[in-house]
Amino acid sequence: MTYPATRELAKRIAAVHAPDVGEAARAGARNAALDTLGVILAGRGDACARLARRLAVSEGGAPVARLIGAEERTSASWAAFVNGTAGHALDYDDVDFVMLGHPSVTLVPALIALAEERGIGGAKVLEAYTLGFELLHVLGRAVNPRHYRRGFHATATLGSVGVAGACAYLLGLNEEQTMNALSLGASGSAGLVSNFGTMTKPFHAGQSARAGLVAAKLAEEGFTAAEDTLETGFTAAMAAEEIGPTAHEFADWESAVAPWGQPWDIEEGVCVKIHPCCAMTHPGIDAMLDLVTSEDVRVDDVAALGARASTMTLKVLRYKEATTGLEGKFSMPFCIASALVDRKVGIRQFEEDSVARPEIAALQKRVAFELDEKMAREDPETEAAEVWIKLKDGRELTRFFARARGHVENPLTELELREKFLECAASLTEEKALAAWDAWWRLDAAEDVAFLTAMLAVSVREPSPA
Amino acid sequence: MTYPATRELAKRIAAVHAPDVGEAARAGARNAALDTLGVILAGRGDACARLARRLAVSEGGAPVARLIGAEERTSASWAAFVNGTAGHALDYDDVDFVMLGHPSVTLVPALIALAEERGIGGAKVLEAYTLGFELLHVLGRAVNPRHYRRGFHATATLGSVGVAGACAYLLGLNEEQTMNALSLGASGSAGLVSNFGTMTKPFHAGQSARAGLVAAKLAEEGFTAAEDTLETGFTAAMAAEEIGPTAHEFADWESAVAPWGQPWDIEEGVCVKIHPCCAMTHPGIDAMLDLVTSEDVRVDDVAALGARASTMTLKVLRYKEATTGLEGKFSMPFCIASALVDRKVGIRQFEEDSVARPEIAALQKRVAFELDEKMAREDPETEAAEVWIKLKDGRELTRFFARARGHVENPLTELELREKFLECAASLTEEKALAAWDAWWRLDAAEDVAFLTAMLAVSVREPSPA
Repeated sequence: MTYPATRELAKRIAAVHAPDVGEAARAGARNAALDTLGVILAGRGDACARLARRLAVSEGGAPVARLIGAEERTSASWAAFVNGTAGHALDYDDVDFVMLGHPSVTLVPALIALAEERGIGGAKVLEAYTLGFELLHVLGRAVNPRHYRRGFHATATLGSVGVAGACAYLLGLNEEQTMNALSLGASGSAGLVSNFGTMTKPFHAGQSARAGLVAAKLAEEGFTAAEDTLETGFTAAMAAEEIGPTAHEFADWESAVAPWGQPWDIEEGVCVKIHPCCAMTHPGIDAMLDLVTSEDVRVDDVAALGARASTMTLKVLRYKEATTGLEGKFSMPFCIASALVDRKVGIRQFEEDSVARPEIAALQKRVAFELDEKMAREDPETEAAEVWIKLKDGRELTRFFARARGHVENPLTELELREKFLECAASLTEEKALAAWDAWWRLDAAEDVAFLTAMLAVSVREPSPA
Repeated sequence: MTYPATRELAKRIAAVHAPDVGEAARAGARNAALDTLGVILAGRGDACARLARRLAVSEGGAPVARLIGAEERTSASWAAFVNGTAGHALDYDDVDFVMLGHPSVTLVPALIALAEERGIGGAKVLEAYTLGFELLHVLGRAVNPRHYRRGFHATATLGSVGVAGACAYLLGLNEEQTMNALSLGASGSAGLVSNFGTMTKPFHAGQSARAGLVAAKLAEEGFTAAEDTLETGFTAAMAAEEIGPTAHEFADWESAVAPWGQPWDIEEGVCVKIHPCCAMTHPGIDAMLDLVTSEDVRVDDVAALGARASTMTLKVLRYKEATTGLEGKFSMPFCIASALVDRKVGIRQFEEDSVARPEIAALQKRVAFELDEKMAREDPETEAAEVWIKLKDGRELTRFFARARGHVENPLTELELREKFLECAASLTEEKALAAWDAWWRLDAAEDVAFLTAMLAVSVREPSPA
């Protein structure tokens, strides 16, 4: 390919016109936007979302973009931050195994806020989302899995660059400005996996939504940044050891960029979550749910139980047992125990009184969570998992899931997507939630995003955090 | 030491009381604050500072903290961002060779803005600065030089954590909150050396001032983050290869924390710049200035010239020749050429019409800038430089500077500091500038920081950027 890669990507983004984004990509982008808006509504009452909103309200700002699920409007960058944080609060938003992170919870809050501020219609939002998703895949192919192994949360790091590129398109920036936005976004990228299981994980989504949006706005005004940042500084810092003119050799940018737009990667869809917890727990949860329901296993019948997974899964799921809901989202033993006891791992299971049940506390200690040597040899990063139960009657049952329900290889139906949205939008009346679903489903034709976000305002005041 | 190191540092910060910070530390912090305020005033008209201000004004915010050198006030986090960016615009702010970056341009804007918002007096600002500087040294000892070699701009990355800790002290946070602020600040840290020579380098300072301040404010409200982030995720991502429970072994936190407060590192002072360009150019500039003035060398007498330096200096100074002032700040040939032609390397030399002079364009092409093998073997990171000139009469002259003027080992006098401040504060009348110097010099006794920042307002409207 032509170097610098950063400029090449900017050129491609700036060259896109509406007809280049076909129906399949628009549908994928719309589904992702709807799922994200649902989980923002569901997460808005979470403590980290309330604290992010309080900070934004106290800092103040021109009231041009709505805090989803709230009466207030604020500036675009604060709205992107608050909505991004709320959307990731429950770890219920979609996930992607090329970027190794969460694509929509960074792209959607930033694009919606910016479209609202500038009066940009829904069609362009869907195009921008399509490009942002494509860009996240290029970045993921270039730097993963080394980037993730190093301890970076790609939602924040790659997200910041992806949002910068998507917002650059939404603003109609030229190649030079887009290049500056990408490079500036790369300098604003951060986030550490060690903060998983705390409020700082959702903060990463908000931070990256905001950083990318700010990068694009500054680039629009004429702010400058280097034309080779992605393949030199960014690659070296995030996935290699050295910097300098030959640093592009540390990442295969040629292969990373080659599939650009042929077809758009979002046409395959994105991995939607049906459990509000780390994606690495999902195959284990689905396997356990399948096992306990198909075999009708009762807790009292169980003599021993456990799960086996690959290297990355064991690293990311750092909590052997969970004492809070946030920790539970990154604990395979907790998720397996909840699946066995409740036969469901939904929003309710991660609420504090649910986590505190003695039955759950006792059972999660009994879950053996171990490395599967064969899986680790074949693919250290795979999220596949096998669960097993030894029954008191001597029988031993196992189930293996390579891909969770909702994965692009195992997608949800439109009806299942809508059911999840309605569950997430419980703070709206059912009538309002259905009307919002229908209106947002026609996003491609919407001239006014502000009208759509107004449908997601919630007039109930929640208590302030303790 | 006791692990987690993150919690140990939080404990130390939360345990500090005013009497623990003595006169020497307060004087060091005051000098650093004054130098920083001066360079913010000098940089406020620079294009990147104007663009940052425009974005902040358009986003809006509660008017509680002043944009230095401007009429407007805005929210604390936007003020920290704008003032941080302005302060680093000219690369004229102080520098530190333990953090391998710029300490005051992140700490001072954040602390001043937050003190203004909360009505906190000057004495506490000086204490918070002292702790922030100490913390930056701990971080620098733990992760450098690998961190810098990897392509990170420590001003942004370590700065974000340093500011979080300093702001946590200013807000009077307890140990738990301070730990959360440090860990959250680490997740908000980024910045890439590849963006040197563009507006995005000053952006790093503003970004880190803002990120650290936001981290401390969220921690104050109860936001959570992991208690081991600095020695696991942060260390692994920034300076080592793996994550996991043993990752603290990749950095010697014991030695990094040991010198904490014995005495405070700021008591030795900080490296103040007398040239507004990358610190790695300074020994070369000082050597060339010394050579041309002591030997009275004229441009026409020169047959050939050059400079020799160590590995890191050659990497950081990435421009062989400069076509803009920003590139000139990271070009040894440009700086050497300016020193020879003008016998001064000040603000004026980096202005566009000055850079565009044919004499400078021609001369910088003639400067040989090469690796000194001996220096590289002994210390790859040293900023030391040797310059040489071959005269047409056959004589060959050389000068070696290990430490630039203004370095802590070669410090400026109070009078020299004040001269630099007055040069930087040219947008104020001389009377107002002197009054501001005197008032800020007594910062330790000031009950009202807002009164002091008001003295730095400038009522002249500048033209909007082209």
